Amino acid sequence: MIVVMRPDSNQQNLDSVVKHLTDRGLKAHLSKGVERTIVGVIGPIPGELQDELEVMDGVGEVVRISKPYKMASREFGPTDTVVTIGKAKVKIGGGHFAVFAGPCAVESPEQVLATAKAVKAAGATVLRGGAFKPRTSPYSFRGMKEDGLKILAAARDETGMPIVTEVMSPRDVELVAKYTDVLQVGARNMQNYPLLDEVGQTRLPVLLKRGFAGTYEDWLLAAEYVLAGGNLQVILCERGIRTFETFTRNTMDLNAIPVIHRLSHLPVVADPSHGTGKWYLVTPIARASVAAGADGLIIEVHPNPDTAKSDGAQSLTPDNFAELMRQVKAIRAVLPAKAPA
Amino acid sequence: MIVVMRPDSNQQNLDSVVKHLTDRGLKAHLSKGVERTIVGVIGPIPGELQDELEVMDGVGEVVRISKPYKMASREFGPTDTVVTIGKAKVKIGGGHFAVFAGPCAVESPEQVLATAKAVKAAGATVLRGGAFKPRTSPYSFRGMKEDGLKILAAARDETGMPIVTEVMSPRDVELVAKYTDVLQVGARNMQNYPLLDEVGQTRLPVLLKRGFAGTYEDWLLAAEYVLAGGNLQVILCERGIRTFETFTRNTMDLNAIPVIHRLSHLPVVADPSHGTGKWYLVTPIARASVAAGADGLIIEVHPNPDTAKSDGAQSLTPDNFAELMRQVKAIRAVLPAKAPA
Amino acid sequence: MIVVMRPDSNQQNLDSVVKHLTDRGLKAHLSKGVERTIVGVIGPIPGELQDELEVMDGVGEVVRISKPYKMASREFGPTDTVVTIGKAKVKIGGGHFAVFAGPCAVESPEQVLATAKAVKAAGATVLRGGAFKPRTSPYSFRGMKEDGLKILAAARDETGMPIVTEVMSPRDVELVAKYTDVLQVGARNMQNYPLLDEVGQTRLPVLLKRGFAGTYEDWLLAAEYVLAGGNLQVILCERGIRTFETFTRNTMDLNAIPVIHRLSHLPVVADPSHGTGKWYLVTPIARASVAAGADGLIIEVHPNPDTAKSDGAQSLTPDNFAELMRQVKAIRAVLPAKAPA
Amino acid sequence: MIVVMRPDSNQQNLDSVVKHLTDRGLKAHLSKGVERTIVGVIGPIPGELQDELEVMDGVGEVVRISKPYKMASREFGPTDTVVTIGKAKVKIGGGHFAVFAGPCAVESPEQVLATAKAVKAAGATVLRGGAFKPRTSPYSFRGMKEDGLKILAAARDETGMPIVTEVMSPRDVELVAKYTDVLQVGARNMQNYPLLDEVGQTRLPVLLKRGFAGTYEDWLLAAEYVLAGGNLQVILCERGIRTFETFTRNTMDLNAIPVIHRLSHLPVVADPSHGTGKWYLVTPIARASVAAGADGLIIEVHPNPDTAKSDGAQSLTPDNFAELMRQVKAIRAVLPAKAPA
Repeated sequence: MIVVMRPDSNQQNLDSVVKHLTDRGLKAHLSKGVERTIVGVIGPIPGELQDELEVMDGVGEVVRISKPYKMASREFGPTDTVVTIGKAKVKIGGGHFAVFAGPCAVESPEQVLATAKAVKAAGATVLRGGAFKPRTSPYSFRGMKEDGLKILAAARDETGMPIVTEVMSPRDVELVAKYTDVLQVGARNMQNYPLLDEVGQTRLPVLLKRGFAGTYEDWLLAAEYVLAGGNLQVILCERGIRTFETFTRNTMDLNAIPVIHRLSHLPVVADPSHGTGKWYLVTPIARASVAAGADGLIIEVHPNPDTAKSDGAQSLTPDNFAELMRQVKAIRAVLPAKAPA
Repeated sequence: MIVVMRPDSNQQNLDSVVKHLTDRGLKAHLSKGVERTIVGVIGPIPGELQDELEVMDGVGEVVRISKPYKMASREFGPTDTVVTIGKAKVKIGGGHFAVFAGPCAVESPEQVLATAKAVKAAGATVLRGGAFKPRTSPYSFRGMKEDGLKILAAARDETGMPIVTEVMSPRDVELVAKYTDVLQVGARNMQNYPLLDEVGQTRLPVLLKRGFAGTYEDWLLAAEYVLAGGNLQVILCERGIRTFETFTRNTMDLNAIPVIHRLSHLPVVADPSHGTGKWYLVTPIARASVAAGADGLIIEVHPNPDTAKSDGAQSLTPDNFAELMRQVKAIRAVLPAKAPA
Repeated sequence: MIVVMRPDSNQQNLDSVVKHLTDRGLKAHLSKGVERTIVGVIGPIPGELQDELEVMDGVGEVVRISKPYKMASREFGPTDTVVTIGKAKVKIGGGHFAVFAGPCAVESPEQVLATAKAVKAAGATVLRGGAFKPRTSPYSFRGMKEDGLKILAAARDETGMPIVTEVMSPRDVELVAKYTDVLQVGARNMQNYPLLDEVGQTRLPVLLKRGFAGTYEDWLLAAEYVLAGGNLQVILCERGIRTFETFTRNTMDLNAIPVIHRLSHLPVVADPSHGTGKWYLVTPIARASVAAGADGLIIEVHPNPDTAKSDGAQSLTPDNFAELMRQVKAIRAVLPAKAPA
Repeated sequence: MIVVMRPDSNQQNLDSVVKHLTDRGLKAHLSKGVERTIVGVIGPIPGELQDELEVMDGVGEVVRISKPYKMASREFGPTDTVVTIGKAKVKIGGGHFAVFAGPCAVESPEQVLATAKAVKAAGATVLRGGAFKPRTSPYSFRGMKEDGLKILAAARDETGMPIVTEVMSPRDVELVAKYTDVLQVGARNMQNYPLLDEVGQTRLPVLLKRGFAGTYEDWLLAAEYVLAGGNLQVILCERGIRTFETFTRNTMDLNAIPVIHRLSHLPVVADPSHGTGKWYLVTPIARASVAAGADGLIIEVHPNPDTAKSDGAQSLTPDNFAELMRQVKAIRAVLPAKAPA
C-alpha cells in the first residue's frame, strides 16, 4: 500500500500517518519528492486500513498494491485448479468441461429420475436439484429438505451421475454433505461467512455463486473463506448481477469468465438460467458463455416447465436442453485449445 | 393477478393459461374485449406464477395486483408499529425517535464503556457494538464473539442503555439473544432465510438492514419472514445500496424513508455511517435522514477513530457525535407533527 | 393500458379516473368485478399517462399493454431488417454478418490506411475511425474533425471499405454525412433527441450505441426517433452498461443480443472493445457475442496500441485482430442456421 | 500519477513504461524499492494514460494522484462560488439559497403566469418551465419551443422572477439565451460536449444536471467543459441516478450534496421531483436535501397536476408547494451557519 500525501500537507500530518501505521504493527517507508511525500506501507494490511488512511488530514490518495485475496489468486496458483466430483470423478477446470443440469427444485422421485436420465442422455455430467430452496417470499415453496436429498441420492445411485444441491445454513452442512457430491452456496449467501467457514471445513467441492451485487473482488474473497478453511475444491459460478435493466431477471456478466481466468486459478461456470430468467434466452447465452471460455454450465431442466413448483419460466424442456448441448459441443470443438487464459 | 392475452392469441393459448391456473388450485375469470381477452386470477398467488405465465404462448402481459408481503404492509397495519426496546423501554416508531450509537466493533470493556457514557450524555438511547463481525476478507478482525457480548451487557448494566448487536448465524441466535436487547441482521444477511426464520422465533426486536442490492419489495419480504414467525418487533434500517458511484462506500437511498412509511407500518432508521463510509459525510446525511422522516439513527462512534479495529474511517469522535445530536434535535423540533406519512 | 382500482376505492375515485382519460381524448371501458373495478384505456396513450394515473386516489395498479415503440418492434417488422452499407453494399442483419474495425481515433493518413489494409486482410468489411471524439475530460484529444473525415474517405477510396464514424452534434450531421457511409451515434448521445431527429432526416445507415444507463426500451425508443424520421436503416450496438463492477470499463450485457432479436427486427452488433475496456478481454467477449447471435462486431484496432491517442488499452494489434477473426469465423460456421430468433 | 511495477517485472518492462511516458512528452521519476519499482509521472496527464499503462507488461497498479478536473475543484476555488441570476440578481451558493419552481412544460400563458404568481407568493425566486422538452418517446409532447420561451419571458416581465429553461441542442443556444436567465442542461445531455462547449461560450448561468449514470467525477468534468469555455457561472443539480430500484423513478443520491461541497466550490441544488418521480415523496426529500446542505431546490409545480402535459405524477399543487416552502424554511433556520463544508 502506498499513501500519497497532498502537496499542502505538513510534517504533523505525515507524523500522524506514520504513527497510525506503527500503531498497527506496520512499517512506513518514506520517499520525499519535490512536490509530494509518498509513504510505502510494509507488513500485512488490515482490510480497513485504506479507508482509515484516506480520511486522515493531509492524505491525498491511498493505493492498494497487492490483492486482498491470496489463495484464490492466479499468483498463488499459476496452474489451473481441476476439481474432481463424486465417485464418477467428473473433472472441471484446466480444460475439463462439465455440465450440471436438472430441476430447480426436487419435487418427486419420478420428476428427478426422469430429468436425470434425460439430461444424462443429452450429455450432462452432474445432476442438480434443490432440496433447500431460498425464496424471496416466505409463502413460496421452500423445498423438500432431507426427503429431497434422499431423492437426489437415489437418482445418483440409479444413473451414476454425481449431484449438486444447495445448502443454506451452517447447521445443515453436515446433513447435506452426507448426501451430496458438491455443496452449492447460493447468490444470496455469497457473503454468509459462517456458512462459508463451515463448507470450508468439509472436503467436498463447493459451487460458489456470485452475489447479486458482488464485485469480482468480493467474490474471490468469499472463495478465500472456503480456501482458508483448507478446502481447495472451489468452483465459481457467474449467475448474473442486479442492474437497472429489469426486462431480464438479472444481467449476465460474461466479462466475468475471462476476468476470473486472469485473476484466479479456480474454474468458473455459467448459469444462464438465472442469468436471464427466460427460457428462450438460455440457449443463446449458454453458447456465449462457452465461447467466452466457461469451464462448465449449470442449466435448469424440467420435464414439464409449465407445472414446475419454482422457476418454470427459465427451465428448459429435455428436448430444448438436448439441442442446447448439441450447439454447445459444436462451439467447444472449434475453440482454441486453451481458450480463456 | 391479471393476465392480458395478445391480440393474436388463439383459443388454445387461452385454454393452456386457464389449465395452468386450475392445476395450481386457482380460479380464472375471463373478460373478453373487442381486441383482447383478459384473465383474472383468483386465489393465493405463488411467487413464481408471474414468471411462468409470462412465457406461455399467447400471453402479452401479466400484472400483479396485490403485494407479495402481507403482515409488513400498510394495509395490514394502518397504525404505525411502535417497537419497545429493553428494560429501559426505549420506544421507536409512531412518532418515537431513537438513536443507536457506539463502536463498530467491541474491542475492550474500557472502549465500550467510555463510548457508551459519551453517547448517552449526548442523547443516544441504545448502545450499538459488534461482537460477531461480517468481514469481506477472512483475514480481517472478526470480532470478540461471546466475550464481546459480555462487555456490551456490562456496559448496559453500568449505563442503563439497552444494546443492539449483530447475529450472523442461526446457530448463534440463542447465544446472542441471551445478552442483547435488539438482534441486528446485517445487510449481507438480508436474504439469509434460516437466520430470518430463527430470529422470527424469538420475541426480541430485530433491526433488519437493507441488502446491498435489495429492492424495497425484497426488504419488506425479508421482514415478512420475521413477522410470519410471530415476531412483530421489526425495525428496518436503510444503510445505502450499491451503485456505480464508488466515491462513497454506498449510495444512501433516502427515498426509502418516506417510501417505507407509505408501504409499511414498520419503523425505519437510517445508518449514515455505512451509507456514506466517510466520517465527514455522516452529520449532513444524518440531518437529511431525520428531515426525510426517519424514526431513528444508528451511528458509529469511537473514542479514537484512528485506532479503531474496523470502520475507523466512518466513525465519529464523541465530540462530533454530540454536535450531530444537537443538529438533529434542532431539525426534529421543526418537523411537522407527523413528518413522513 | 389497464387501470386496476383498489378494493377500497369509491365511485368518486372511479369518476376522476374516467374524467382524466376523457380529458385526454381517450375512452374508458369499465369492467366491474366482485372485488375490484378494472378500467381499460382505449386510444393513443401519451408517455406520461401511466405515471399520472398511478398517483390518483383509489388507483391500485396501472398496466401498460402495448409497447411504446412501434416501428422498432418485432410486430412492425416480422422479417429481419437488412441494412446495406456504402457502394460496396456490405449487408448486415437477417443472417448477414459484418465486422467494423479500425482505430478509435483518426490520427494520420498512414495510421488509418495501414489499419484499414490490415483489418481488411483479416476479414473486416467496414472501416471505423473517430474524427469527432467525445471525451470525458475537455483536456483530452478531441479528434481531427473534418481533416479526419478526409483521411477516412481517402482510405475508403484506396481500400474499397465503407466507413463508419461518429457524429456528435446536429450541426455536424450534414458535414459528416458528406464523407461517411454510416453515421454513428455514441453511447453518451443515445438520448440526444435533436441529434436523433437530424440523423433520422438522412438516408444513411445509423449505428446507434446503447447508453451507459439505457434500458432495452429506452434504446428502442431512441431508434424509434430515427425510424420516425423516415430513416429505416438503423443498426443497434451493445457496448456495455454501467454497473457497480469497476474492474472492467463497462459490463457487457450479452443478454441484449437475443432480447433485441426477440423485441425488434433491427440488426444488433456488439462492441467488446468498450464493453470490456481491456484488450485481453476483447477476443473472448467477441467470441461470446457472436455465439449469442450478434449480427456483427465493432472492434478497435491500432497498428501500435501503446502509442494510440485514445483507448490504447482496449485496442488490438492487427495480429491479435486477425486471430480474433479466425476464432469468430469458426464459431459462425457452427451456429444454427438462424441463431438468435 | 504513479506506476507500480509488479515484483516479477523485468528491466525491459520498465523501459517500455518509461518510453511510453516520454513518447507522450512526460517525464518518469524512478524509485526502486526492495520489492518493487515505482515510476512517478511528471507532466500533464492525458485522460487515457491510466488505461494504457494498466495493460502494459510488468505493470501492477496505476494510481492517479491529481484530479482530472481543475477549475471545478475545491483547490481551484477555496471560496464558494456565488452565482447571480437575472436582473433580480438572485444569488445562489456561498450561503445564498434559491428555489426554482414552476411547471415541467410550458403549456399556455395562463398556466405559466398562474404558477409563477403562486410559487413567488410561496417564496420561490426563479421560475422554471420547459419549452424544449427531451422525451423518451418521439410520440410524446415535445414542447412549445420559441412560443414557450416567449410565454416564460412574459411571465418574468409580469412577476420580476428570472427564468430557467432547458436547451437541448448547440444550435438552439443562441435562441434560448435571448430569452432565459439560466440555461439548463438536462440529465440526458450531461455529456453532450458540443452543447457544453456552446453554453460555455455564453455568459449566462448554467444549471447542469447530473446524468442518469454520471459519477461525481464525470459530472465535475462536464462542468469543467463549461468553465474551460470561460463561463464560471455553473450550478450543479442532483436529480437522482439510475439504480436497480424501480419503485421510484430515480434514486436520489443525497450523499452528492456534501460530497460536491467538499470536492468543488460550485453551488449544488437538489431536484426532488425527478429524484423521486412521485409527488408525495417530493416534500420529505426536499426537506432532506436542504438538511444535507443544498444551496437550492428545483421543484415542479402545476396548477392542476392531473391535467399536466408532462410529469403530472411528480408535480405539486401550489398549496402543497407552499407547505413545502414553510417546512424548508423552518429547517434552513436551524441549520449550522455553514452547513455542508
